[in-house]
Amino acid sequence: MVDVNRKLKNIIVLTAVLTLIPFSQAEPAKDTGLRKDALEWLSPLPEKYQFKKSNPGTPEKLLLGKMLFFDTRLSKSNVFSCASCHNLATGGVDNNRFSTGHKWQTGGRNAPTVLNASLRIAQFWDGRAADVEAQAQDPILAGVEMAATKELVLERLNSIPQYVERFKKAFPNEKMPLTYENIANAIGAYERTLITPSRFDRFLKGDDNALSRTEKKGLKTFLDKGCSTCHDGAAVGGGSYRKFGEQHQPPNMEDKGRFNVTKDEDDINVFVVPSLRNIELTYPYFHDGRHWTLEAAVKDMGYYQLDEKLSKHEIGDIVAFLKSLTGDAVETTIPILPPSTARTPVPDRN
Amino acid sequence: MVDVNRKLKNIIVLTAVLTLIPFSQAEPAKDTGLRKDALEWLSPLPEKYQFKKSNPGTPEKLLLGKMLFFDTRLSKSNVFSCASCHNLATGGVDNNRFSTGHKWQTGGRNAPTVLNASLRIAQFWDGRAADVEAQAQDPILAGVEMAATKELVLERLNSIPQYVERFKKAFPNEKMPLTYENIANAIGAYERTLITPSRFDRFLKGDDNALSRTEKKGLKTFLDKGCSTCHDGAAVGGGSYRKFGEQHQPPNMEDKGRFNVTKDEDDINVFVVPSLRNIELTYPYFHDGRHWTLEAAVKDMGYYQLDEKLSKHEIGDIVAFLKSLTGDAVETTIPILPPSTARTPVPDRN
Repeated sequence: MVDVNRKLKNIIVLTAVLTLIPFSQAEPAKDTGLRKDALEWLSPLPEKYQFKKSNPGTPEKLLLGKMLFFDTRLSKSNVFSCASCHNLATGGVDNNRFSTGHKWQTGGRNAPTVLNASLRIAQFWDGRAADVEAQAQDPILAGVEMAATKELVLERLNSIPQYVERFKKAFPNEKMPLTYENIANAIGAYERTLITPSRFDRFLKGDDNALSRTEKKGLKTFLDKGCSTCHDGAAVGGGSYRKFGEQHQPPNMEDKGRFNVTKDEDDINVFVVPSLRNIELTYPYFHDGRHWTLEAAVKDMGYYQLDEKLSKHEIGDIVAFLKSLTGDAVETTIPILPPSTARTPVPDRN
Repeated sequence: MVDVNRKLKNIIVLTAVLTLIPFSQAEPAKDTGLRKDALEWLSPLPEKYQFKKSNPGTPEKLLLGKMLFFDTRLSKSNVFSCASCHNLATGGVDNNRFSTGHKWQTGGRNAPTVLNASLRIAQFWDGRAADVEAQAQDPILAGVEMAATKELVLERLNSIPQYVERFKKAFPNEKMPLTYENIANAIGAYERTLITPSRFDRFLKGDDNALSRTEKKGLKTFLDKGCSTCHDGAAVGGGSYRKFGEQHQPPNMEDKGRFNVTKDEDDINVFVVPSLRNIELTYPYFHDGRHWTLEAAVKDMGYYQLDEKLSKHEIGDIVAFLKSLTGDAVETTIPILPPSTARTPVPDRN
């Protein structure tokens, strides 16, 4: 009787376990191999924000940086803030081919996402800024973007007592806390918090159920075809420079990319490899926003970079995998900005 | 001994009470009178959102309305959303004299705040829309603002499955949930939640400490001079039409205001009286944004509307009171918008 009881108990327990554990977890061997292959190229996003030693992310600085990120007074016209083109409602971009700036002008390159941007090897498509802190200095002054001057922005912020106070608290050991560099330092520190883990990270960490069967097939194709040789690391890209057109020359490559920075002929048509995190949200694609769908972008990448004529099925699977990189939303509360004063220079649309 | 003990106890209790209650509460008589005077003209903001019977504010509709409020795809160029000009970081306005729209054009009137807008007698400076639901239909189509067409906006939203689904849930009893009217209905319902109680409401409800001595002096001056005859009710304005220049004609009154709507000569230079809620944040002031400081606006109002040459002290006190109308921030989390699809019409900057 004891043995029969034990058997019965075992059956009950086994049934309960089989009921509770979804089917795919019952085949651990398959995903363990895929995970191991993936981890050779890719890795989960870091669990802690990575600040620069010289620019630690204190709560005071992060809040200040967030306020500045949303403040249109950093633009001459008072029409644009960082958030205008790096819209946190839409994947940290504006989903336009080229962003619209001062006097309806546009630049010549598609705005990269601010999400996970701090993980890139360098900022801008051509890598001309070393990090997000350096990057944040540029659009404020660019004539086709925010079109301000350092003097104007400093005069505006200095005229607002709440900002003066917040800079003191964010940069407590500095004699002159409110400098143009510190505006960018605060914004950069805030941007380093815009990290968006997704289902894919849960898969890499061992959760077989985090990806669907099609997404896993897509991941396998992504690895097998060699996409991960460029789109690697925690950001699934962003870690290296590559020529757009390594195997075949794409059309319309007037933009010489990194060559404009280095004047090295090897850098013609070379760009920072984009991160594929949130790529579902950050259309249109490539440095010039030439494609509006992931399918078209993946097809081009396969041919121009890898000499692979990917089938419709392969493209579909890869796109399914790429959508698993859409991050859990960064919950952003809109900061309430301090009002201007009688001393604040007024907007100038000219 | 009993009597002495009781006396001692009373003294201890009295001391404790006097220590705990701040000074101003020790003089209840004064504020009771001021509060009574104030309540003859003014009232606290409603505690519940006030939806239209025909457009109830279900959670599904409010979230949809918020998403649409932040979605730049309602503009032809994909550059502007409702939130561009009605920025919730800056009092529900953009702090520009005239807002910038499609192709860098501007309208001719200062953008009114969306905060507490649903409490107004009618929408726009000239009252040409009955409520926020009707108002929300206009800027999307206005050539100098978002410059879209009904067809374009409907084609865009219909191409995005998540939106189609959300319209079904927000308007569950309608055969065609995704209509142009329902876009505006969802946005309008959301806008009805943007109500911003402030310290002033706490004062009206009995908290003497909610306002400082100067703010109370300002409130008294505000009432005594007659400001509250126009700026009345829960929104401290917004409830009536008045001529700008009832006592003296201000300069630069080319804008005929409500006359353009009614063609009634009595309506020349007549506008909806602005709400003074959050007025500290919603500069520049008046229908044409002619003043950047509250001091200048209060001075003009005193003279043009009330034939009062207010002293510097009186103006300072009134301004102090007006700043007590700055609402507790409406905490707004940025909604995450569904991505476009291959069928979505792309942005058009022309």
